[in-house]
Amino acid sequence: MIEAGIIGGAGYTAGELIRILLNHPGVNLNFVFSTSQPGKPIHSIHQDLIGETEIQFTNEINKEVDVVFLCLGHGNSKKFLAENQFSEKTKIVDLSTDFRQKSDDHSFVYGLPELNNAEIKSADFIANPGCFATAITLAILPLAKNGHLKDEVHVNAVTGATGAGTSLSETTHFSWRDNNFSAYKSFEHQHLNEIGQSLKQLQSDHEAEVYFIPNRGNFSRGIHATAYTKFSGSLEEAKKIYKDFYADSVFTFVTDEELHLKQIVNTNKCLLRLQKFGDKLLVTSIIDNLLKGASGQAVQNMNLMFGLDEKMGLNLKASYF
Amino acid sequence: MIEAGIIGGAGYTAGELIRILLNHPGVNLNFVFSTSQPGKPIHSIHQDLIGETEIQFTNEINKEVDVVFLCLGHGNSKKFLAENQFSEKTKIVDLSTDFRQKSDDHSFVYGLPELNNAEIKSADFIANPGCFATAITLAILPLAKNGHLKDEVHVNAVTGATGAGTSLSETTHFSWRDNNFSAYKSFEHQHLNEIGQSLKQLQSDHEAEVYFIPNRGNFSRGIHATAYTKFSGSLEEAKKIYKDFYADSVFTFVTDEELHLKQIVNTNKCLLRLQKFGDKLLVTSIIDNLLKGASGQAVQNMNLMFGLDEKMGLNLKASYF
Amino acid sequence: MIEAGIIGGAGYTAGELIRILLNHPGVNLNFVFSTSQPGKPIHSIHQDLIGETEIQFTNEINKEVDVVFLCLGHGNSKKFLAENQFSEKTKIVDLSTDFRQKSDDHSFVYGLPELNNAEIKSADFIANPGCFATAITLAILPLAKNGHLKDEVHVNAVTGATGAGTSLSETTHFSWRDNNFSAYKSFEHQHLNEIGQSLKQLQSDHEAEVYFIPNRGNFSRGIHATAYTKFSGSLEEAKKIYKDFYADSVFTFVTDEELHLKQIVNTNKCLLRLQKFGDKLLVTSIIDNLLKGASGQAVQNMNLMFGLDEKMGLNLKASYF
Amino acid sequence: MIEAGIIGGAGYTAGELIRILLNHPGVNLNFVFSTSQPGKPIHSIHQDLIGETEIQFTNEINKEVDVVFLCLGHGNSKKFLAENQFSEKTKIVDLSTDFRQKSDDHSFVYGLPELNNAEIKSADFIANPGCFATAITLAILPLAKNGHLKDEVHVNAVTGATGAGTSLSETTHFSWRDNNFSAYKSFEHQHLNEIGQSLKQLQSDHEAEVYFIPNRGNFSRGIHATAYTKFSGSLEEAKKIYKDFYADSVFTFVTDEELHLKQIVNTNKCLLRLQKFGDKLLVTSIIDNLLKGASGQAVQNMNLMFGLDEKMGLNLKASYF
Repeated sequence: MIEAGIIGGAGYTAGELIRILLNHPGVNLNFVFSTSQPGKPIHSIHQDLIGETEIQFTNEINKEVDVVFLCLGHGNSKKFLAENQFSEKTKIVDLSTDFRQKSDDHSFVYGLPELNNAEIKSADFIANPGCFATAITLAILPLAKNGHLKDEVHVNAVTGATGAGTSLSETTHFSWRDNNFSAYKSFEHQHLNEIGQSLKQLQSDHEAEVYFIPNRGNFSRGIHATAYTKFSGSLEEAKKIYKDFYADSVFTFVTDEELHLKQIVNTNKCLLRLQKFGDKLLVTSIIDNLLKGASGQAVQNMNLMFGLDEKMGLNLKASYF
Repeated sequence: MIEAGIIGGAGYTAGELIRILLNHPGVNLNFVFSTSQPGKPIHSIHQDLIGETEIQFTNEINKEVDVVFLCLGHGNSKKFLAENQFSEKTKIVDLSTDFRQKSDDHSFVYGLPELNNAEIKSADFIANPGCFATAITLAILPLAKNGHLKDEVHVNAVTGATGAGTSLSETTHFSWRDNNFSAYKSFEHQHLNEIGQSLKQLQSDHEAEVYFIPNRGNFSRGIHATAYTKFSGSLEEAKKIYKDFYADSVFTFVTDEELHLKQIVNTNKCLLRLQKFGDKLLVTSIIDNLLKGASGQAVQNMNLMFGLDEKMGLNLKASYF
Repeated sequence: MIEAGIIGGAGYTAGELIRILLNHPGVNLNFVFSTSQPGKPIHSIHQDLIGETEIQFTNEINKEVDVVFLCLGHGNSKKFLAENQFSEKTKIVDLSTDFRQKSDDHSFVYGLPELNNAEIKSADFIANPGCFATAITLAILPLAKNGHLKDEVHVNAVTGATGAGTSLSETTHFSWRDNNFSAYKSFEHQHLNEIGQSLKQLQSDHEAEVYFIPNRGNFSRGIHATAYTKFSGSLEEAKKIYKDFYADSVFTFVTDEELHLKQIVNTNKCLLRLQKFGDKLLVTSIIDNLLKGASGQAVQNMNLMFGLDEKMGLNLKASYF
Repeated sequence: MIEAGIIGGAGYTAGELIRILLNHPGVNLNFVFSTSQPGKPIHSIHQDLIGETEIQFTNEINKEVDVVFLCLGHGNSKKFLAENQFSEKTKIVDLSTDFRQKSDDHSFVYGLPELNNAEIKSADFIANPGCFATAITLAILPLAKNGHLKDEVHVNAVTGATGAGTSLSETTHFSWRDNNFSAYKSFEHQHLNEIGQSLKQLQSDHEAEVYFIPNRGNFSRGIHATAYTKFSGSLEEAKKIYKDFYADSVFTFVTDEELHLKQIVNTNKCLLRLQKFGDKLLVTSIIDNLLKGASGQAVQNMNLMFGLDEKMGLNLKASYF
């Protein structure tokens, strides 16, 4: 059994990790570290877990675990690792933005299995991708692989309220968000950096601008993204490129059907649909922001790092409704 | 023109008052007092008002206005009036709980027009009823009027998230409340006091217990309440009692149709439906918690106090969808 | 008083018209024609109207009314007018697509007041614009007026479920749509025709493609649209262009604030926000699809045709929550 | 491996069964019978299954399977079994109401494991309980077991839209149900029969009336029920009675925490909370109507019938948000 620890246990991504790991046949949840809730049962915060576990939050860290997941706010992972050292064998999966940009300062591998499968398998440290970045990168990566990204990419995506975390704010207040819709951070979302890095990794001459408008949706979970760009080939050629690229992917699928968000809610899947209009290729991409966009992908990375079946613990029943 | 002021202008009920008063043909909105937002345009907080008014919040109070609405947190109205004195002619409508219980200490009239129409017309100070209290009292008041309240009353009601005000809390967080439902304060809601007072006013020997379970609904506006009790007469007798009682009411109607909440959302109406099962009379009651349950009723009271048409400014288009 | 009739009274847009006209100080609702519901009170279908009116649907048409609104399915207006003739004085507002394209075959004026104010004032027949068309056209029309539309326009918009009408379908089933999101008719929405026609009216050399992705949102009312294109001037220049263009508009406003859909729900307003990123001008546009996008605009057109105050009957209280 | 078949594969409960059985380690999904969709992949209807299975609906029934689940409309199971005969070894789980009432005409066991665990283990035919019946019966059954049901029971419960099935109707239309709430079938819901039967099974002298008001909630999944009745003992005594009764239950738990619906959505759990006010014991009960209230409980019954771990295949990750 892999002994696993979670740092920062009270937030949404930690909750999802706990839900997955409690039922993961290859993992024992060793500890859930929380500075705010030590001594309390984790089901006092993640209240769906009543009847399933009596594990408590702890303020002590077991530095000998096999793997640790960092569920800290952006900027805090780097700080935490500077102040806390794990054993040599401990692998780390960081869910923050702190190590997503490649740098000589660290050895974290960007944990998008569809892009870096081999590197992840031999990695000790994983920078888990952002949720928008996962949905959007998977939508256009096969084009970059094949050198087809030569023109502007136009992306519009909408995320559920859990994407904003547990913190209370005007735009996460129910009375505000219910039956509402709004754009934010247009053309300036921080995930554009990691998207650009991934595209350049596969197509080094990629210089095309990605125009991205993120939106706040009035639902809890999920990201729905559309992306289009010029593509000179036919729809069939595009489908072949995508199906080839994702041939070995166990969670990312290309379909001919019209997509809707709830197909993937509460699963670790990414579904992609391709359409061609004039000279434009349109790709629709849907993921669960907390799973394929965060904790599910983190476990997928853990499975790869430890040589387990990539899907272990991740055959999740979709809620669908 | 009636010169009107609002004290505590940043909350939901103040926003609704402003929306109504800006279009009220007999009123000029003289000032909106806010300690937190002075100098800002009111449309910076009540953002639907862009293009309709350039009025700003002020931290100065005009004590010569004809009427002032107090939209302060419960407990704060009493405090505010102790520290601030209005002119002799200024009428006051208080939306808090502070003066709802009759007492020798004050001369506020409980502002439920269906109960105290005449008293309101000659009142200077109005204690505007609570939202749950309005929905529930209107559902059972005709029985008290006719001495039919002899047995336990069983009430279950659900309110929208705006009922909890603008403050941020776990249960008003969108990610929590979306697609959720929960009971709270069962049998102990503070509005039971004013409900009991109103029933006793009409039926002094009323001793029957009112069992009330309030619920948090995953919608923004409205209260849906069901109330049942033993009633020895027929359904037709009950309908006659109710229709007689509400014959002169301009916003409260008895219908034979099945009710659903959105019939009254964004209006000042209360709709009631009666059904009889065995020896039980079941009454369904629906109101908009922010209008008939707060600001709409406050304006209705103002209209009565100033001798205006009771409906003036309150012929509101239902949103319905 | 203007005597008004409605043809096709059971749908959403007819319901909204009835709600508005019942409170319109210059109009008497003469009849509501419905082949499916004759003899029933209109509040049996538009159930918010209980207590407000006892008017019944009729299957007889008064051909002498001053104005008639056609709320028929697309394709049916033309057919209806071929089979039914109104008096010479009767003005017609058609809410379908049937007469939106200019043609030698008819004399309907496209009823977008921001574009055709003068023509509407002297028109007898109005083709009321589509909901998406209204939101999108208002977002880019000032650029066309000033000859700035030289490059591709990228539009993404989301509409509420009422946009699909009362008919039952998989995508309007609550269990499907709740907490869901989906794109549809990408690049091929039928409203692209009328958008193009309006742009060309102001900028005859306009040849730039409008790429439009419509989406189904999990809310009932409203359209939120974002549109961007190359614009060589500064943000200040753009704002000046827009503010000049809408200087006389009574429902369309340009604001510097971040927008969210509920600002305009249950009103006849359109709010626009401009932002500049690099060489791109981004315009966000929000309207209520049933009001400014349908019935509210129809009444606005009626007001203009009859020389009334353009806002009469349309000072609607936003629901906001 | 248990070979399992599903009759009536296109509805919600069939979809949930398929989702569960595809990941159930002890079951092979042998066939999914559908008269409306034969030859189509099941993921064309249950669209979350893209990428997980290529099984197709069939119009042929394998009568040699080990277990068959009947997901037919109420009234149709009896008819189907009259026309179709399975092998002697085939166990049947019927999700309709057809066999829930004990009768000399059939040998179906009422499949509420908390009530009939031993009988289910040796049964060949199971009548799977209704969703409201499950939530409400579990809330009051321990009282009946101990002879405490002597007075009226007052129940109010709200269900999600999936409770109404896939059929399209006014009250399942998104534009109607969104942000709406309504009571229906008050005091007359068909599940009162099976609730009464279960209570009488444990307390044969039980004659107390159960007053039940069902409500339509504006969410997709789940039932939230409150039930109260006179109880002469203390809260601690009540808790002991309930905890003893559910000591061996693997999905039903008594908690001291405030409950909210989303704690159990997408799980097979029932959570119960007890409170005492005066002489009244109040029990809150929450289940997922499609799982513990239908397909999850059906699989739980199958597990018991085949001697498997009762929880096998049912350790489902809650969606929670």
